[in-house]
Amino acid sequence: MLVPKGLMNASRNFKGKTAIIDGKHTYTYEQFAGRTAKVKRSLAKLGVKKGDRAALLMLNSFRYLELMYGIPAYGAIMVPLNVRLTPKEIAFVLNDADVRVLYIHKEFLPYLPELRQLAPNLQHIIFAEDEGEALAVGNESVLFYEELLAAQPDEPLTADGIDEDDVAGLFYTGGTTGRSKGVMLTHKNLVSNAYHCALMMQYTEEDIYLHAAPMFHLADGASTFAVTLVGGAHAHLRAFSPKGVLQVYEEVKPTCGLLVPTMINMVLNDPDFAQYDVSSVRRIMYGGSPMPVEVLKKGVKMLPGVQFFQAYGMTEASPILTVLTGKNHMVGGTAEEERRLASGGQAVPGVEMKVVDPEGSELPVGEVGEIIARGPNIMKGYWNLPEETARAIRDGWYYTGDMAYADENSFYYVVDRAKDMIITGGENVYSVEVENVLYQHPAVLECAVIGVPDETWGEAVKAVIVAKQDSGATEEEIIAFARQQLAGYKVPKTIEFVAEIPKSGAGKILKRELRDRFWAGKTRNVQ
Amino acid sequence: MLVPKGLMNASRNFKGKTAIIDGKHTYTYEQFAGRTAKVKRSLAKLGVKKGDRAALLMLNSFRYLELMYGIPAYGAIMVPLNVRLTPKEIAFVLNDADVRVLYIHKEFLPYLPELRQLAPNLQHIIFAEDEGEALAVGNESVLFYEELLAAQPDEPLTADGIDEDDVAGLFYTGGTTGRSKGVMLTHKNLVSNAYHCALMMQYTEEDIYLHAAPMFHLADGASTFAVTLVGGAHAHLRAFSPKGVLQVYEEVKPTCGLLVPTMINMVLNDPDFAQYDVSSVRRIMYGGSPMPVEVLKKGVKMLPGVQFFQAYGMTEASPILTVLTGKNHMVGGTAEEERRLASGGQAVPGVEMKVVDPEGSELPVGEVGEIIARGPNIMKGYWNLPEETARAIRDGWYYTGDMAYADENSFYYVVDRAKDMIITGGENVYSVEVENVLYQHPAVLECAVIGVPDETWGEAVKAVIVAKQDSGATEEEIIAFARQQLAGYKVPKTIEFVAEIPKSGAGKILKRELRDRFWAGKTRNVQ
Repeated sequence: MLVPKGLMNASRNFKGKTAIIDGKHTYTYEQFAGRTAKVKRSLAKLGVKKGDRAALLMLNSFRYLELMYGIPAYGAIMVPLNVRLTPKEIAFVLNDADVRVLYIHKEFLPYLPELRQLAPNLQHIIFAEDEGEALAVGNESVLFYEELLAAQPDEPLTADGIDEDDVAGLFYTGGTTGRSKGVMLTHKNLVSNAYHCALMMQYTEEDIYLHAAPMFHLADGASTFAVTLVGGAHAHLRAFSPKGVLQVYEEVKPTCGLLVPTMINMVLNDPDFAQYDVSSVRRIMYGGSPMPVEVLKKGVKMLPGVQFFQAYGMTEASPILTVLTGKNHMVGGTAEEERRLASGGQAVPGVEMKVVDPEGSELPVGEVGEIIARGPNIMKGYWNLPEETARAIRDGWYYTGDMAYADENSFYYVVDRAKDMIITGGENVYSVEVENVLYQHPAVLECAVIGVPDETWGEAVKAVIVAKQDSGATEEEIIAFARQQLAGYKVPKTIEFVAEIPKSGAGKILKRELRDRFWAGKTRNVQ
Repeated sequence: MLVPKGLMNASRNFKGKTAIIDGKHTYTYEQFAGRTAKVKRSLAKLGVKKGDRAALLMLNSFRYLELMYGIPAYGAIMVPLNVRLTPKEIAFVLNDADVRVLYIHKEFLPYLPELRQLAPNLQHIIFAEDEGEALAVGNESVLFYEELLAAQPDEPLTADGIDEDDVAGLFYTGGTTGRSKGVMLTHKNLVSNAYHCALMMQYTEEDIYLHAAPMFHLADGASTFAVTLVGGAHAHLRAFSPKGVLQVYEEVKPTCGLLVPTMINMVLNDPDFAQYDVSSVRRIMYGGSPMPVEVLKKGVKMLPGVQFFQAYGMTEASPILTVLTGKNHMVGGTAEEERRLASGGQAVPGVEMKVVDPEGSELPVGEVGEIIARGPNIMKGYWNLPEETARAIRDGWYYTGDMAYADENSFYYVVDRAKDMIITGGENVYSVEVENVLYQHPAVLECAVIGVPDETWGEAVKAVIVAKQDSGATEEEIIAFARQQLAGYKVPKTIEFVAEIPKSGAGKILKRELRDRFWAGKTRNVQ
């Protein structure tokens, strides 16, 4: 079970079939594998050693895909970098992972002087763009991706001397929980997830998967290796924008792809939505954060030919733990079916899950506790952090830090990240539950519910809201609306209207940043 | 990747859904897993130790399925026995595998005195029938399956303390190549195959899979673990008969199943075929031996709602190496598509294949050589036969002994078992090629082409034929028919009409037995 084997198989079985569509670039599977073999060979030529780290500071492109196969095929370790990071944060990762090679897109060239200074162990910087873009480089001393490839002989892609338990990639967590940690995913981890994903999504060789969410994040990466496994095609959108997605839907006619909920929300709310032909799309996976039920219902209505699949997981699980299948996305069904829209679905075939109390004992159906999971897709550990690893993986079970309950049919309902849960007057408030109510208000475009310091209650519930243009909604009106549907202690005490809510590079709302403004200098007096 | 994990997952996700249909017995997934947990617990109560062997001398039944999960879940090793073996042959396997527990169906009770005598290490014999069948046991001292289960407490199925590289099953090869060998398949081997199979067959929870071919054989077993993985249902036919299959098609309405080619031939030729409703069937997998193209064409015509999938493999590969998908079963398509009907298909995602010359070097497209394969589904080795294992697996590659060529799109065409190939006057004749021509003759119901001793040519091509009733075909007529389509040296020199061709318990034609009659006392002077 090695990452490159999927591509090797596809290059034999789907030789002349389109594998890559990226602007003017289209490649067959034979060409894709051939170029990947050259990526691999070029690493050898640069003196890179097996096990060395090679990082990617790139937007979405077919070259990202080639590197996701070529680096592990060589036995080196890929390190996809969050493109939203500052040069200092990038340098932290480069040093933490002791990266030797950095592949870079032109947008990030301005970071180079600072990166070279802060990460002196960096040996090679490779400019991974079309040949015509060479001018962008200016005085920077870099190697050129296409030149490196052109210098290598034609040879078949192979993957010898690699063990399935070798680390294929180091995926740094967004740092939403303090210091960014390198998640070590092995070949077996990623390939197991690919099988789970391909089975659940029923990908086939007829699919064209659009990489529209950032490829550095495993929300998109969840499907990357699965699509290749069955010989589907990969289409690429360099960076997400609602119009960009709609345009590619019309021009490239993809059949499937992943969008995080905030992206779906933006696409559906695009004023020109109706002008685009989106009829090719059959399946949209979403994940990375919970999807407000109202947004989902809108999606089902506006994209009637689309089945929605929710995947719940995290980088540490390569990333999928559960899937709510298209069939279980019933809008206007029975009460149980409607309730399931709020669920992350059921454990995929190879994954075992439990909801446990703080002592690690399994809780009965319906009770909220921490989700723990095990399976062949669970990470090897955190890079150079044996203590963090030992805290996260105990007795073979990975402790997710997510609070959830299971129903009698083993559908899991994630109520909150443990750290996003608000404790007010001794009562637990799950921010997601409150957000789901607020999203039902017609004026709410986006919202985040957090706990802020409160002298009386320890924490108080606060909602941060981006209102729709010209909605004219007031704090009082929205609080009254929430009061109709929520127990008193769950209703936001205050509402703040903002122009924008801070998000991670993967589009995940950063509640920590919102909270930090209120908690500066204070200690949370609940645990 | 443990065999029981698939069932554990299904019992949570598909709790109240039908898992088993077998005559008057139907069980949900929760019940199936609950009974399997009792099978496991009862092994402990009998003093069976982890790693001990428990054999099954049973026809198809839901209890077979429970044992295929329960024995490995305990950490013991299942040994499915070919039901066509004589008591002496069974005793050979029982002794070779040092079997401690034997599960038995009533049809085989008469073997017990001889088995007890020849296999004295046997500790427990368990009668695996309904309670009402107890009378059949007579004076035999046996334990009763249902009594053992009834004595165990209700508890969830678990699988702790087992490693994925532990042996889950010993599958004895039919002995078509000399001494019967125990193929050691690990949990990982079987689960890898299950993923490959589920993906290729696109099994879903809506499928009802009919176990009509013998469950002791991995032709049927190829799908067993895959169907559970996705929450499909298992239907059982105790023993194959064409009418039995047609009846279950009508009554149980299965959607899919495996039949070996000779079975498909018998079902299609059943005089009452048209009287049965077979409309529920959507996908038939076939394998175990090559399918004459004429039979396949007839199947496509008579079962217009059915997609045919050919799987090529062997016990040593758990068993699938390649699949010719439904889409590639095009009758009346282009010349290339028609040609593909004779192909075993392409390597499944996790499998690598090569066609090599006798020195192990890969041969170019179109050239015939031996197929070698590697992947997570390749056996651990032969039980207690390190030398045979070392001959079969070299440098991580399994040498199949099958002669084949690949086309430019990596479709594999198995021309013959190496040992079934006839060498006449220095020319290689692939028996399958000649059989494919003979099957086009309207009088031929079944045939087998073998090499017989010949003073001039070393070997001469001989066809053994079961003619259709009242066809009145003659040897001369069929030879003349073959001459129109085959080069002179491939045309059978003689034809023998027989009432029946010897087959293995799995329905595979035993060419060795046919050959033995002619080669007794002679040495084959070709290699």
